[in-house]
Amino acid sequence: MTNQDLPTLHSWVSVPKNSDFTIYNLPFGIFQSKRLSARVGIAIGDKIVDLSVLHEEGFFADLTQLPHDIFLRDALNDFIALGKPVTRRVREKVQELLLDTNDALKEHTCRGKAMVNRTEAQMLMPVKVGDYTDFYSSIEHATNVGTMFRDPNNALLPNWKHLPVGYHGRASSIIPSGVPIYRPKGQYKDPNMEVPEFGPSRRLDFELEMAFIVGKTTKMGDSVSTDQAEDHIFGMVLFNDWSARDIQAWEYVPLGPFLGKSFASSISPWVVTMEALEHFRVKGPEQDVPVLPYLACEADHAFDIQLEVFIQPEESTASKVCTSNFKYMYWNIAQQLAHHTINGCNVNVGDMMASGTISGSTPDSFGSMLELAWKGTKPLTLEEGVERKFIEDGDTVIMKGFCEKEGIRIGFGEVSSKVLPAK
Amino acid sequence: MTNQDLPTLHSWVSVPKNSDFTIYNLPFGIFQSKRLSARVGIAIGDKIVDLSVLHEEGFFADLTQLPHDIFLRDALNDFIALGKPVTRRVREKVQELLLDTNDALKEHTCRGKAMVNRTEAQMLMPVKVGDYTDFYSSIEHATNVGTMFRDPNNALLPNWKHLPVGYHGRASSIIPSGVPIYRPKGQYKDPNMEVPEFGPSRRLDFELEMAFIVGKTTKMGDSVSTDQAEDHIFGMVLFNDWSARDIQAWEYVPLGPFLGKSFASSISPWVVTMEALEHFRVKGPEQDVPVLPYLACEADHAFDIQLEVFIQPEESTASKVCTSNFKYMYWNIAQQLAHHTINGCNVNVGDMMASGTISGSTPDSFGSMLELAWKGTKPLTLEEGVERKFIEDGDTVIMKGFCEKEGIRIGFGEVSSKVLPAK
Repeated sequence: MTNQDLPTLHSWVSVPKNSDFTIYNLPFGIFQSKRLSARVGIAIGDKIVDLSVLHEEGFFADLTQLPHDIFLRDALNDFIALGKPVTRRVREKVQELLLDTNDALKEHTCRGKAMVNRTEAQMLMPVKVGDYTDFYSSIEHATNVGTMFRDPNNALLPNWKHLPVGYHGRASSIIPSGVPIYRPKGQYKDPNMEVPEFGPSRRLDFELEMAFIVGKTTKMGDSVSTDQAEDHIFGMVLFNDWSARDIQAWEYVPLGPFLGKSFASSISPWVVTMEALEHFRVKGPEQDVPVLPYLACEADHAFDIQLEVFIQPEESTASKVCTSNFKYMYWNIAQQLAHHTINGCNVNVGDMMASGTISGSTPDSFGSMLELAWKGTKPLTLEEGVERKFIEDGDTVIMKGFCEKEGIRIGFGEVSSKVLPAK
Repeated sequence: MTNQDLPTLHSWVSVPKNSDFTIYNLPFGIFQSKRLSARVGIAIGDKIVDLSVLHEEGFFADLTQLPHDIFLRDALNDFIALGKPVTRRVREKVQELLLDTNDALKEHTCRGKAMVNRTEAQMLMPVKVGDYTDFYSSIEHATNVGTMFRDPNNALLPNWKHLPVGYHGRASSIIPSGVPIYRPKGQYKDPNMEVPEFGPSRRLDFELEMAFIVGKTTKMGDSVSTDQAEDHIFGMVLFNDWSARDIQAWEYVPLGPFLGKSFASSISPWVVTMEALEHFRVKGPEQDVPVLPYLACEADHAFDIQLEVFIQPEESTASKVCTSNFKYMYWNIAQQLAHHTINGCNVNVGDMMASGTISGSTPDSFGSMLELAWKGTKPLTLEEGVERKFIEDGDTVIMKGFCEKEGIRIGFGEVSSKVLPAK
């Protein structure tokens, strides 16, 4: 994998300055509208290319592996399962068709039908998630949490630098941007309580994460090497791993987080492909403890993705509360997938694996309210003087992510979700 | 729900003495054979009733909600989703047709086609599992583990009697009885090791569990009460929660079990319905710490299901190593489902929720090798003098479960899986 200069490309579709959806990006998603059933699209500027129309009109005629209705499904799984040689070629073909030097689509009678306004589309879940795994791969986040809840001098547990710690999460409650969530109810027991109490969580939090989507199914007993791993990954999304800190703190020993997480996780709906991310590949942090051979990497598997979190209280303006970067991750996605399958665990197309909270080293780069407001001891002051220790009812949490280098920008759009009072 | 005497029923199908599949049971499963594609069947004696044949011949004509191909699917999910009024009526109709006083099927020309020999059928996964959850609901098991690894005087953690501790598991690697598993590889670090080492697990274990299958989909934000819970449960299976103790011990802090479990879980393929289990409903153990109102139960939700585990080394005979009972569970299935959804987590038809290891109070009732051989300190002696601390390559682990009362027996058949060497 090389990190070479990209040629300069221009599209006949007008792309607003600072758009995440440039001709270099071309992410895949599932959309529907008042007149259109769920289908596969590619975003460019403020438009969505309806791939079902292009396919119907014969633009993919040379790709004989494409079933006739492959773009009229309500999830990308079947498309992704066709394999990278096919999915990559579809994206390249769309890129060719969108170039300002190419009239084939621009001047075609189907152009009006093929180009849908993003404002008229509702984005759905891009994939059916079979299994969802959450890692814990930011050393800054793990250190912050260990410092707060255990021992500042031994913040990291002994296994942390030897393997990418992870756990299974709930797949059913992963929802796309725009779907509101209900504040979860549950048990909590603060140190001052004799017995646990029950009610709506008082410490609702976000976690700034990214997730990759598995692109290739493996069999039980098989493992994926770090070298092969990215070939098994289709693309990435932004991931808000909603967390109820009070519920989590009481329930999580000894078997890990459960109801403190399972009520909802929100994702950005456009899947940015590994091909689009290629230009933003960077070296990750030095791993200062030697890893076992199955976790060693020949190549770089980190990506320079700038991340931001905003909180928008009801009837107020949005405030940026965090600026972080995916490249801070101590454990990379190749190591995560290699570790996940080293025991022979089979993975399926559409499985989602999230990074864990992505914190940086400075306080403004911490990826959760738990860390930003340091367990409630340092409330954040937002625009218009609003204070926050955790997330309140009516707040909307917005996460954004984008890559920028040498005048080229690609991005993830956003994952935005409003918190409704407990039901 | 009542626990009244069942009428005496006789079938024209010969049912061997001690068969699990009596006319009182009639569990659902998915089977295929050399000449038949995957389809829905009901077990009786040594036969399987091919429901697709009965449907084709009009035996379910009064059930207008049944799609014409509902029994020609490769999973029960769509059938279960029709709801209990329908699934219950199908089972009752089959029971009527199998009575020796009923000639409708017995004398029908389709009888030969409708009744398949179980020996000629291959059993498949009964459902597509969306999400899988594992609880930790046996007080004896939790106490044994806490005693071994933490503090004999405080074996149970503070939350244990206040909520049914649980965690998310891996759905993709749940497999039916008969499918062999590979010994998992991974990292472990024994106390005497300076750094973790890598290799095939040296402490492969089974866990004797049962699992229920969710029968009704709920929405995010909604909760299921203990009163309603059994109406949301379709039926149960035996569940072997394979565990690699050395991998688990090193990886599990602070986020719980991951690769020590995710390589495989094996289930019995016949789903015994809650209707069949009704006759064996009993009172569960006293809960000596008051529970929060959402976990309180009006009715009894425990079931008297006798459980056995056998180990059969390669080229040796099977030895019974454990005799336990599902009724020992401190937390019942209604409490588990109520707890799982109290935070608004949505559940889907086909989701599987396992009990956790079912240990009793006597050493011969412990549901794992970890407990039976007490962390390797008390090796078991099997038939022919074979010793076992954990499970060896070539061993087959067989779990059986059945209910017996007043001459009436229903059972789960078995979950049997052979361990192959690491790949």
